[in-house]
Amino acid sequence: MADYSVTPWEVKGDVDYDRLVRDFGTSYIDQSLMNRVEKHTGKPHFMLKRKVFFSHRDFNWILDKYEKDEKFFLYTGRGPSGDTHLGHLLPWIFTQYLQEKFGVELYFQITDDEKYMHDRSLTRKQVSDFSYENILDIIALGFDPDKTFIFKNTEYIKTMYKISTDIAKHVTFSTAKSIFGFQNSSNIGMIFFPSLQAATCFLPSELKGKNIPCLIPAAIDQDDYWRGIAREIAPKLGYYKPAQIHSKFLPALQRGEKMSASKPNTAIFTTDEPEVAEKKIKSAFTGGRDTVEEHRKHGGNPDIDSAFQYLYMILEEDDKKIEEIERDYRAGNLLSGELKQIAAEKIKIFLKEHQRKRESAKKTFDKFILRD
Amino acid sequence: MADYSVTPWEVKGDVDYDRLVRDFGTSYIDQSLMNRVEKHTGKPHFMLKRKVFFSHRDFNWILDKYEKDEKFFLYTGRGPSGDTHLGHLLPWIFTQYLQEKFGVELYFQITDDEKYMHDRSLTRKQVSDFSYENILDIIALGFDPDKTFIFKNTEYIKTMYKISTDIAKHVTFSTAKSIFGFQNSSNIGMIFFPSLQAATCFLPSELKGKNIPCLIPAAIDQDDYWRGIAREIAPKLGYYKPAQIHSKFLPALQRGEKMSASKPNTAIFTTDEPEVAEKKIKSAFTGGRDTVEEHRKHGGNPDIDSAFQYLYMILEEDDKKIEEIERDYRAGNLLSGELKQIAAEKIKIFLKEHQRKRESAKKTFDKFILRD
Repeated sequence: MADYSVTPWEVKGDVDYDRLVRDFGTSYIDQSLMNRVEKHTGKPHFMLKRKVFFSHRDFNWILDKYEKDEKFFLYTGRGPSGDTHLGHLLPWIFTQYLQEKFGVELYFQITDDEKYMHDRSLTRKQVSDFSYENILDIIALGFDPDKTFIFKNTEYIKTMYKISTDIAKHVTFSTAKSIFGFQNSSNIGMIFFPSLQAATCFLPSELKGKNIPCLIPAAIDQDDYWRGIAREIAPKLGYYKPAQIHSKFLPALQRGEKMSASKPNTAIFTTDEPEVAEKKIKSAFTGGRDTVEEHRKHGGNPDIDSAFQYLYMILEEDDKKIEEIERDYRAGNLLSGELKQIAAEKIKIFLKEHQRKRESAKKTFDKFILRD
Repeated sequence: MADYSVTPWEVKGDVDYDRLVRDFGTSYIDQSLMNRVEKHTGKPHFMLKRKVFFSHRDFNWILDKYEKDEKFFLYTGRGPSGDTHLGHLLPWIFTQYLQEKFGVELYFQITDDEKYMHDRSLTRKQVSDFSYENILDIIALGFDPDKTFIFKNTEYIKTMYKISTDIAKHVTFSTAKSIFGFQNSSNIGMIFFPSLQAATCFLPSELKGKNIPCLIPAAIDQDDYWRGIAREIAPKLGYYKPAQIHSKFLPALQRGEKMSASKPNTAIFTTDEPEVAEKKIKSAFTGGRDTVEEHRKHGGNPDIDSAFQYLYMILEEDDKKIEEIERDYRAGNLLSGELKQIAAEKIKIFLKEHQRKRESAKKTFDKFILRD
């Protein structure tokens, strides 16, 4: 057993990404694929270059289709069980880039039904409030209002249920159990839910009456899910298999913890006061040495340093700057406190800007929402 | 093991109703309960008197509430997997009587989702066509258009899904498995479906924002279903437990068979040409003797005679006439052919009249339908 676990429900510990690629049987995003992307988008997104998005299934096929004038659509989602943190934003930021550069539609599923059924203590009101708050964060990222369709399952269920019954018809309890680890104690709503999550892969094809390729940008823990249900079922229903592009996980601020709303210090939330976020990053796990002397002598380790990871994976777009920071930190020229200060400034700027956009998202909200 | 099986999916062989009452733990409808009904409805329906509806759960409680001016509603349903036969009509005829006499609302669930998911070979179009045809039969029975709400699950799913997720949250796979006999090979749509069927028990309470007692008239095979899910969950969600009133099954025309659209001679369908129905009843299983001489000498057995059972359970409302027929048949004065002729005439009259009403139901159809 690895000392980490990756399932669609939770990620814990240090993740061995190479092993995930081997175990899941996905492909690395290599230079030739990156070159193909560059041809269409100009300079590729820093998350691609830095291998934050590092693995895929059939992304090359998506580009084949695109090059033959067959546009794909993007599908991602959010389970509204708490406030949004930067780890959630990471794949959505990349999704926004894909939408903009390829000029494609995005279907964004809010799984309010799943979260309500998964956690007995969550009330419908709580899930509804989290949904609203999470959607503000999504809209704030700059998605195209004419090409972005955000829907809560409970509000779009008439359309979704139709496709879901097509899927459910072909998915046995065994199959769902082997993918999600359902038990006898699992509730029957959660057992059905995989068909709703898979349904979005085929939603635009259903709506438009023609087969449209689907690309899912998501953290790699979701891979099993799509492989086991949507990709298995697609040919039976006459649809294309959904393609995927996989990201790594933004680490928690405390090592060995999971980012969680119940432990506010593990993550930076989009609604954190910038000064609160500053304190969080300053008390985060460091890759620096115990004393200044040792640090100057041996250098720090950016690979396990939360502040550095936040800069590298999400906050510092400038490749030159991040290379400089990394080099100086490894060399011991940049102290842990100084690195944290750089990250804190970046986070504060990001949050102020995001919170401003989040506020104006309240006005454009309805333009993004799909309802039956 | 009994030589019959009763589950919500199928009924085969001769049914030992006393044993079902014992096994399920339901109560007989006794004379004092019948007297209470009579107080409100006048002369009770022949199906009550003849113990076609013979068992119940909490029907006395329904009357308690009714007598305190708290009206109940009726809930029944239909799985649209084929044409309607007289066995389906039996509980609906009784339901129409209850509606009329107690002046109550009826919610009629068409489980088009279930039938579509249950049978892989059924297309959505087929289920949709069966739904339409079945609903015509329902409307033809004379339900009050102002108090009758017929809905297909797929068309009313937004409302139903909300209640269903409340229910599903509390129903484990174990529970559903023990009631419905789900296997690892069962599909995940069928596993979720019990929450949709239970949801109707709480639908009017949800729609009207107050607790409304629910009475389900249905064949006794459904009892386990309501006991195991809806009655278990009701207190957890703050609703009344649904009450039930149970009927026996109209037997198939051929002994030991199950009424089925795939074996047209096992049942009389509402769309059968009257002359076709006549032929069916004439070739049905008889309780008469092998020769006229023996019959005259020993008499016939109405208890196993299909023609007699059709008259007794559904077609001959007149108590005097049915007693006469029974007496004469047992005494050997009425021959099997003569009994069949009586039943054939009744069936022809019934079908002609039903088919006329069924035709005009096409005009009033929309008035009965509930959609999101």
